[in-house]
Amino acid sequence: MHVIAVDAMGGDNAPQAIVEGVNQALAEFKDIEIQLYGDEAKIKNYLTANERVSIVHTDEKINSDDEPVKAIRKKKKASMVLGAQAVKEKAADAVISAGNTGALLAAGLFVVGRIKGVERPGLMSTMPSFTGQPFDMLDLGANAENTANHLHQYAILGSFYAKNVRGIATPRVGLLNNGTEKTKGDSLRKEAFELLSKEASINFIGNVEAREIMSGAADVVVADGFTGNAVLKAIEGTGLGTMKTLKSAIMNGGLKAKLGAFLLKDRLKGMKETMDYSSAGGAVLFGLKAPVVKCHGSSDAKAVYYTIKQVRKMLDTKVVEQLVDAFDPKEEVN
Amino acid sequence: MHVIAVDAMGGDNAPQAIVEGVNQALAEFKDIEIQLYGDEAKIKNYLTANERVSIVHTDEKINSDDEPVKAIRKKKKASMVLGAQAVKEKAADAVISAGNTGALLAAGLFVVGRIKGVERPGLMSTMPSFTGQPFDMLDLGANAENTANHLHQYAILGSFYAKNVRGIATPRVGLLNNGTEKTKGDSLRKEAFELLSKEASINFIGNVEAREIMSGAADVVVADGFTGNAVLKAIEGTGLGTMKTLKSAIMNGGLKAKLGAFLLKDRLKGMKETMDYSSAGGAVLFGLKAPVVKCHGSSDAKAVYYTIKQVRKMLDTKVVEQLVDAFDPKEEVN
Repeated sequence: MHVIAVDAMGGDNAPQAIVEGVNQALAEFKDIEIQLYGDEAKIKNYLTANERVSIVHTDEKINSDDEPVKAIRKKKKASMVLGAQAVKEKAADAVISAGNTGALLAAGLFVVGRIKGVERPGLMSTMPSFTGQPFDMLDLGANAENTANHLHQYAILGSFYAKNVRGIATPRVGLLNNGTEKTKGDSLRKEAFELLSKEASINFIGNVEAREIMSGAADVVVADGFTGNAVLKAIEGTGLGTMKTLKSAIMNGGLKAKLGAFLLKDRLKGMKETMDYSSAGGAVLFGLKAPVVKCHGSSDAKAVYYTIKQVRKMLDTKVVEQLVDAFDPKEEVN
Repeated sequence: MHVIAVDAMGGDNAPQAIVEGVNQALAEFKDIEIQLYGDEAKIKNYLTANERVSIVHTDEKINSDDEPVKAIRKKKKASMVLGAQAVKEKAADAVISAGNTGALLAAGLFVVGRIKGVERPGLMSTMPSFTGQPFDMLDLGANAENTANHLHQYAILGSFYAKNVRGIATPRVGLLNNGTEKTKGDSLRKEAFELLSKEASINFIGNVEAREIMSGAADVVVADGFTGNAVLKAIEGTGLGTMKTLKSAIMNGGLKAKLGAFLLKDRLKGMKETMDYSSAGGAVLFGLKAPVVKCHGSSDAKAVYYTIKQVRKMLDTKVVEQLVDAFDPKEEVN
């Protein structure tokens, strides 16, 4: 039985979307048990599952504008913090929240804790591509600054994830750089390139450019947290902006445009589904002693369900335990 | 009279697109004179203008896969190098090429030369936004590594450009960062934020995120070359990929989808025009003693025409001379 702690109070649609996602997941997966942290009365309004589920009541919660580190230190009874605490005390195997990202990162680092040997856990998401074949990218912004050694570790972390959770036998690992030639980049990239080239446990395919990552250039894309965050946001901003512009072009285009859009509806929907990656689950703060996963703040019940499914897969495949072994200093060849 | 040196042999559609663009520009602007560098016989195939134009024949040219610095050192008679040389010798006021970007940057730095006081010229483009109001961004990758002082200079450079060439009275200058709060970012960003906050000659509006830059967050976006390059490529990859996916959804969607697309044609075209920024001209290696401007490698005659128009505006407004004054150490307050 996998025990998953869920922060019922985090995100724009909490607790309804969270609890409904939990209902769905409990109905489908018989090998999971859910602990819901939050306002008991409010949770009960939506909870239909009655097996393998418990509520841990608390009035306290972390708000989206709370200062992350301060919040997890001061609000010891917040739903998110109690969930992380349960993982620390081995009462739960993993924790999920759709709340304040920074606070969840802080709870992950300071409450759940790093795997021994992992210097700086990275935030990793499975991102969509135009080819229909998603890719994992990290660090997406857990760190503002990274060293080449961190990037080296991200390559190993991402490769483990793609292999275990996404079932890719030999994930192609690429280093995000400003050109594909091996001599490209700043000193950080040059140093990281050397380290990745020598790393026998991964399939390093060299540098990849931000223009190509959404067209299947690699299965795992390694970036420092600053650049990874900027690229993620550039992709989001461009994608959302394009869709919004298309929509307003249709809405302001009169009857002809509306009829055209109606005829194209199925195709646009199919396109949207290709680009929708909520089925891949949430963003993992990877390199911690247990899965700590962030659902998007605007998650609906489906997205919560998929994140639970993702966490279950992480627990099933024991990807974290494998990482603990891989990073154990005793195992190091050097 | 503004004398503009044009590399007739650079880019995918050279020399035809280049020469046709020159024909258009010469017909419209009576105050410019063009020097075309390249294969005289081939140029003459397309040249219809016969006033204020001259051809400087050379057999040599820089290829797209030539190693930039080596190429400009070894191929002294290459069309691009001769154009830059003409600027150095004051025989021309500016140089334009659609050829090898790295080689043009090298020719700019080593042949034309930096403005005294500008440490690292930056590559700057006027980029489209969903609001229809474009923005200037630099450095887009002339440098793999930058210091806070370089970013400080980019803010001044970009502001001068937006003011003079784009006619924005008080350009809003934003620092590309991983959050909008002033405490965000790595040490480079924090240091740059301090410098920009104290810079009286610009209208610094604080940090901007990559998600918002295409929605009108700032008129000038300041980035280090590595991040700027990655964000530019992420925007390009997402934009092109979305359009390609939309196209193939329509093409494979049968008669219904094709009819829908037909009805939407005008609207999609309008949208494409909003996002098309070739009318803003090429990418300027800004901070040099004269305008050195890169047209996109795939430029058609229209894009070449617009780049000549842009360079003419730069010469008309004397933006480079103003920069020379602004960066003159004698003028510094400190």
